[in-house]
Amino acid sequence: MAGLTLQPKRKERLGDQLYGQILEQIVSGALKEGDKLPSEKELCLMFEVSRPVVREAMMLLQADGLVVARQGSGTYVQRRPPQGLIAIAGASDIAGILRCYELRVPLEGEAAALAAKRRSSEQLGQIKAALDDLGRVVEARASASAADFAFHRAVAEASCNEMFVSILESLHAAIENSMAVALNITREGSDQRIRRVLDEHSRIYEAIAMGDADAANLAMRYHINRARQRITDQHQDV
Amino acid sequence: MAGLTLQPKRKERLGDQLYGQILEQIVSGALKEGDKLPSEKELCLMFEVSRPVVREAMMLLQADGLVVARQGSGTYVQRRPPQGLIAIAGASDIAGILRCYELRVPLEGEAAALAAKRRSSEQLGQIKAALDDLGRVVEARASASAADFAFHRAVAEASCNEMFVSILESLHAAIENSMAVALNITREGSDQRIRRVLDEHSRIYEAIAMGDADAANLAMRYHINRARQRITDQHQDV
Amino acid sequence: MAGLTLQPKRKERLGDQLYGQILEQIVSGALKEGDKLPSEKELCLMFEVSRPVVREAMMLLQADGLVVARQGSGTYVQRRPPQGLIAIAGASDIAGILRCYELRVPLEGEAAALAAKRRSSEQLGQIKAALDDLGRVVEARASASAADFAFHRAVAEASCNEMFVSILESLHAAIENSMAVALNITREGSDQRIRRVLDEHSRIYEAIAMGDADAANLAMRYHINRARQRITDQHQDV
Amino acid sequence: MAGLTLQPKRKERLGDQLYGQILEQIVSGALKEGDKLPSEKELCLMFEVSRPVVREAMMLLQADGLVVARQGSGTYVQRRPPQGLIAIAGASDIAGILRCYELRVPLEGEAAALAAKRRSSEQLGQIKAALDDLGRVVEARASASAADFAFHRAVAEASCNEMFVSILESLHAAIENSMAVALNITREGSDQRIRRVLDEHSRIYEAIAMGDADAANLAMRYHINRARQRITDQHQDV
Repeated sequence: MAGLTLQPKRKERLGDQLYGQILEQIVSGALKEGDKLPSEKELCLMFEVSRPVVREAMMLLQADGLVVARQGSGTYVQRRPPQGLIAIAGASDIAGILRCYELRVPLEGEAAALAAKRRSSEQLGQIKAALDDLGRVVEARASASAADFAFHRAVAEASCNEMFVSILESLHAAIENSMAVALNITREGSDQRIRRVLDEHSRIYEAIAMGDADAANLAMRYHINRARQRITDQHQDV
Repeated sequence: MAGLTLQPKRKERLGDQLYGQILEQIVSGALKEGDKLPSEKELCLMFEVSRPVVREAMMLLQADGLVVARQGSGTYVQRRPPQGLIAIAGASDIAGILRCYELRVPLEGEAAALAAKRRSSEQLGQIKAALDDLGRVVEARASASAADFAFHRAVAEASCNEMFVSILESLHAAIENSMAVALNITREGSDQRIRRVLDEHSRIYEAIAMGDADAANLAMRYHINRARQRITDQHQDV
Repeated sequence: MAGLTLQPKRKERLGDQLYGQILEQIVSGALKEGDKLPSEKELCLMFEVSRPVVREAMMLLQADGLVVARQGSGTYVQRRPPQGLIAIAGASDIAGILRCYELRVPLEGEAAALAAKRRSSEQLGQIKAALDDLGRVVEARASASAADFAFHRAVAEASCNEMFVSILESLHAAIENSMAVALNITREGSDQRIRRVLDEHSRIYEAIAMGDADAANLAMRYHINRARQRITDQHQDV
Repeated sequence: MAGLTLQPKRKERLGDQLYGQILEQIVSGALKEGDKLPSEKELCLMFEVSRPVVREAMMLLQADGLVVARQGSGTYVQRRPPQGLIAIAGASDIAGILRCYELRVPLEGEAAALAAKRRSSEQLGQIKAALDDLGRVVEARASASAADFAFHRAVAEASCNEMFVSILESLHAAIENSMAVALNITREGSDQRIRRVLDEHSRIYEAIAMGDADAANLAMRYHINRARQRITDQHQDV
């Protein structure tokens, strides 16, 4: 499989930029839960962008559960991400982090399913070692994003398909960035949240160990989806 | 989302190499449908590789439907890819092509689902234009892999998530390579097969146009899975 | 597994009734493609029902792709089911038929996946026999719903899980009814549509024969989803 | 949708009977983790059944993760269900309970997805009320299967598709039976396990409240899959 090369990074989408600016106002509290957003037309004027750009930003904010459209009435702020989010991540990164989750759910779900079918006992041992490492680091409340990435990488490796590993590595910076954000929130969270994060990883490992592809796919997708929710919702399992 | 960079291509997995060599024997007819493969132990000796390498190659051959294991009896050749396959692709590429399909099914399925939810009317127009292009090229029985890639790229673009586009582009060479193989087989095939390939693309477009995310996901996954089967099975819908 | 008993049929949901009445107007042409529907408030008054009932009916019409909501503007007829639909089915049945498809997609998809993993060679033979029967009946342009049901029942049987068979049988009347409608439309359709219907069934059989659970799930879900679309859309693959 | 009637219960499959008898030996400890099972041929003679019946029972035991086949070597006991299982359920019911889970995963996953798209605020309120009820009962360590069923029924109701409700009700006895078993195991388990069971239900509710169909589908499938695992594996999250 020759030819796995990446195009130079294209300029950020206008929709993502507008998304970031509205998100910043939600995180800062300038827009509060329940507040109505300006109309499409007003947003076009305020930010000097075209209608499709406004629509794309609105759709992404809805997709992330941050705003909700009520038919015939307008669009309202639905939830506010955790306080320290912008401090940790920078508003401009949040759009990237959330788009990255959209990709990881199907990609890593499939990798986990293949790993359940194909892993050698050596590969399973490496997943277990990464899981134990992650447990130690998280319990110590130390920075866990490297250990977290190592676990996900070991699962991809066990899929016996190099392309899953290559893509995960190409997303390395974006993923560790999002993990740092999610785990930071966890670190500031309760003991219960920490136990949940470890529990989710254990479930993935167990399904792969049992050779149950459907359960592995499900456990991985569930885990990544939950991580995504932890970023956008400050009320999630405090 | 900074940091989307790819590691230098790592050396080919030993399992993939062994896979390629056994596949070559199946395509050449040295191993025929129904023939029993040498045992794990014999394969270790013949190819001077370790047991895990043999197991990985066997698992991938099974995953691709080329061989089948009968418990307590051994492993047998189940189907033979189309005659001209090696001529078109080179045995060493086939493993890469088939692994690439494993990745594309979940990845492009998700992109199609997001496109159904988010596409602007301009983006929908671009998908339609790419579909019409593909129809013209295929009907003319000309080389269609560029037009085929353009269709899939337009769907990824309509997901409003740059990362799907970036990954598709990073796989550009591998995907066009596999499309060339699949479409070549189609070109040599019946009118019926050509109609099916176009039909599959139309279904994806229609589901996205209707805004039906589940149907779009399903139609895309079905299409890519069928393309994969066309490569490994010469009896498929001749 | 004792205790599989059905409650007496509950009275039809008001939402389904309203759905049926609006559908009837779309099929009869009283409401044409592109026409705007009355507002929620007007529909409440016209049909003397509460707002939640109107919302439920609207949501179901949208889910079936028959109407589309344009934000801030209203709800419009998007497509018109095939002409003879009401004649064949009776407007009051259409809601039931389309709700039945919603159930069959996940249910029979899973049954097909389990069949790919578990079928004995005898069970596979019965699926093949049912497929051949269906081919004969459809080619003869005779009434094919019994043969169609027999194919789906044979797949459920091969899942080695009696509960899939029991539920399919409990839905027997509803399923054969919807098959009669879909196949009638097919019978009046082109040769190409007939070939497609047979092709979809062949794909399911082949995936089960190959033992490929994911492909079997996909092929079954795709087939049932297409059948659903054939009922609501007169433009589908004529 | 007339005609939703169930055939009289058919006699238990021979494969399920054999499954029950082997399971009984695993639960009783007559067969221990790591023990090798008799060969197919020996099982045919021991139980006076045909080869396909033995194969079906073996496949179901593998599907449930109770035994594992090692190629060229034989089939071994992989895990032992919790001690009190037979006492609570009776060996003859376990096969039925586990087959019921296979059905519920796709069925209730889809119902949850539809509920996320369609629920009225009244229906959402009923799901919340059922969740609160379940919390009270479980915290009090009282029998929770009726409250558990009520939660799942409220989700099905919110799908706005009566057929999901009808099928759930037709499975009422089988589902409450399996819930009683799973919750009994939970009741005897740690505080942590109780928190997890409630947490899983909260996730389903939250995804439906947010209108996120994919997350609701995922959370429901994950929950039912975990419940299934709790029944077969005594080591699961003690």
